[in-house]
Amino acid sequence: MNDPLEEIFNLIKERKFKELKELISTLHAPDIAEAMEESSFKNSLLIFRLLPKDLAVEVFSHMEPPYQAEFSQLINEEELRELVNELNFDDKIDYLEEIPANLVKKILKNTPENERKLINQFLNYPEYSAGSIMTIEFIDLKKHMTVLDSIERIRRIGTDKETIYTCYVTDRSRCLEGIISLKELILASEDTKIEDIMSTEYISVNTLVDQEEVAEKFLKYDLLAMPVVDLENRLVGIITVDDVMDVIEEETTEDFHIMAGMQATEESYLDASVMELYKKRFPWLAILMISATFTSAIMENYSALIASMTILSANIPMLMGTSGNAGSQASTLMVRSIAVGDVEFEDILKIIWKELRVSSLIGVSLAILNFIRMYVLGKYTLALSLVVSATLIATIMTAKLVGSTLPLLAKKIGLDPAIMANPMISTILDALVLITYFTISSYFFKL
Amino acid sequence: MNDPLEEIFNLIKERKFKELKELISTLHAPDIAEAMEESSFKNSLLIFRLLPKDLAVEVFSHMEPPYQAEFSQLINEEELRELVNELNFDDKIDYLEEIPANLVKKILKNTPENERKLINQFLNYPEYSAGSIMTIEFIDLKKHMTVLDSIERIRRIGTDKETIYTCYVTDRSRCLEGIISLKELILASEDTKIEDIMSTEYISVNTLVDQEEVAEKFLKYDLLAMPVVDLENRLVGIITVDDVMDVIEEETTEDFHIMAGMQATEESYLDASVMELYKKRFPWLAILMISATFTSAIMENYSALIASMTILSANIPMLMGTSGNAGSQASTLMVRSIAVGDVEFEDILKIIWKELRVSSLIGVSLAILNFIRMYVLGKYTLALSLVVSATLIATIMTAKLVGSTLPLLAKKIGLDPAIMANPMISTILDALVLITYFTISSYFFKL
Repeated sequence: MNDPLEEIFNLIKERKFKELKELISTLHAPDIAEAMEESSFKNSLLIFRLLPKDLAVEVFSHMEPPYQAEFSQLINEEELRELVNELNFDDKIDYLEEIPANLVKKILKNTPENERKLINQFLNYPEYSAGSIMTIEFIDLKKHMTVLDSIERIRRIGTDKETIYTCYVTDRSRCLEGIISLKELILASEDTKIEDIMSTEYISVNTLVDQEEVAEKFLKYDLLAMPVVDLENRLVGIITVDDVMDVIEEETTEDFHIMAGMQATEESYLDASVMELYKKRFPWLAILMISATFTSAIMENYSALIASMTILSANIPMLMGTSGNAGSQASTLMVRSIAVGDVEFEDILKIIWKELRVSSLIGVSLAILNFIRMYVLGKYTLALSLVVSATLIATIMTAKLVGSTLPLLAKKIGLDPAIMANPMISTILDALVLITYFTISSYFFKL
Repeated sequence: MNDPLEEIFNLIKERKFKELKELISTLHAPDIAEAMEESSFKNSLLIFRLLPKDLAVEVFSHMEPPYQAEFSQLINEEELRELVNELNFDDKIDYLEEIPANLVKKILKNTPENERKLINQFLNYPEYSAGSIMTIEFIDLKKHMTVLDSIERIRRIGTDKETIYTCYVTDRSRCLEGIISLKELILASEDTKIEDIMSTEYISVNTLVDQEEVAEKFLKYDLLAMPVVDLENRLVGIITVDDVMDVIEEETTEDFHIMAGMQATEESYLDASVMELYKKRFPWLAILMISATFTSAIMENYSALIASMTILSANIPMLMGTSGNAGSQASTLMVRSIAVGDVEFEDILKIIWKELRVSSLIGVSLAILNFIRMYVLGKYTLALSLVVSATLIATIMTAKLVGSTLPLLAKKIGLDPAIMANPMISTILDALVLITYFTISSYFFKL
């Protein structure tokens, strides 16, 4: 995969610009964008100047948004305006969202009034909403048209459309009446009326719907594109599958980062500066460290018990580790099940009942295993072995119940469920483990 | 979203089958499949019998594979054979992979010899390879055809194809020469020759390439379909974007599960039985619990130290928690960066250098915070506060380095990087924390 990149760098080094121009014209836009991102600004600009105009626009649209913003400052205002004007509407919006407001103004200076209005409307859709990822470049048809009329219309206006494979049938007030795929058009006879073959049972979303919900529908119904309507069912845009795949990648990365106790980051690891990485990671680590002070307080509270039986403390790391692992199994499973739409809040009782059974089975099995390790194979007393095993059962069951229900509760009150599979849970579970363990020990050893 | 499901259940309860039939015919196949999966077998069969044949096939293809296998046993052999014969080729393969070999034989009994051969070839592609997710239902064109010829060919053979939006140009020995999109065909003039407008710089994969790599290419190049070729560049199938989205969902779920110390599961949470969930979760918990015995051994080794200074043990949960959190931040970031193709093994030195700087910054910041908490605000001695802070710096740096490099090493030797973001790492880190802490303490307190 890296060969074309290396070749580009070599040709630049040897200043063979004619060969470079030839090579570049055979490459795909995403690969050229990648080469530019990995080059110095000087070489990046050099590559850019060698690109034919159409390809230059495509390459620009494939750059990562932060790099787009940086790159914008390398070229002059006139060049930039031309470039941005040629972008697909949704790429244009993505770009304008990324750059400072005064640059947006400059770029839109010569844009016609009605397009500028539209752009401003799009820039105002909430982040992560269907409105923020849709495009206006779709094919609209009328239901009285014939298949032949429609194909002619597609021929006439199709070039700049994001997709021509799904067409949208609207009435005079732009309300969506049906959709029809190009496949259906191609396979139908030429004089068929659109209203006779269009599908009226289509899947659509409102502009304000969260992009995660959009992604779920694409997955469930195997869509290539989806219409976005406003509250009066007027068609305002469409979302295409390539943008949805980017959304899924982003949302998944966000979940992973949240679950590891980091703030979500859009930049790729190698591009992020040390300070940026520090800022994403430090806050949660600090919060968690301070929260863990509770565990120290609990241990100090039982310091007499520990002093009289130091062997007690030797099992604490194992107990905390096991309960944390059991909890994170349950919470991860639940976060993922919520994300792919397998479970909902209404299932909570079923889930609690299932987890009660699974966790008691696991708790008892691990307790037996632990008892064998400590008492049968090890040198521990019967009493201590029983105490540790009993603590295992109690804490595993707690961990599983807490881990599986908190993500559902988070979702219910409008939070991201992934927050509840965050290390915060382990810290809470650590405290619960210590309290349980010391309570059982005090009781058992009558201390 | 649940309303149609509820309506179905109500109509069944009231035995209003005519209304039920009407309602069902207005629903989308994925919704009907969902309703059937949530019904009793009896009602599921009832819904199925009310479906028009075409819709029945589509509904069947939208069932989860384990449910497909169960459902197959409800209908008679003749019905099943008819149903399976009507499936899209890739759905047929997916289904046949799921059911027992003797049932496969029965179903294929009346299949023509050459199709049976093809099916057996597909069933033999390695799991998770490009070959295992492709379909043979594509449009092939010849380069000497005109646009009009091509569109006529698409009209003639397009009905059963998985996609008609990308067409594949092959030579006499079925080698792939170029691809052309239906958009290009529609927008070109009718007498243009295919060879003049087809694209020869297409993205393709070999049958044996891992499905994750296929998914990465779809994401990078915004593809709707991708040709799959054998070692002689003969076109053997295509992969469509809807199947790739399912692959991404599966692979992501697998990563989440592995990272939480569970065996990956294909079934949805609510469908999985208690015993299945137990089997997925118990092995790792047991392994991790046994591994944690090392931590007990280390603590026992230092029991004299702990007995003389019980206050030492009070900081252990906080130290282990913080190091575990720091490690899982780094490993999660790395696993995700590898999965989306942001970093490769070759970047390892850059990564180590970056993590050294980030982790020393974080280590020092947390150490200062901890020192303030213990010495300035708390009632701890200067010596203990310094020991705990020094341990924090050392263990955070270790955790970050271990967490960020192990996933890369795993990838290098052909393992799933997610395994290295698994709780096993925390267990190793726990042991390292204890050793570091007690070593520093012994030295500092001259014990």
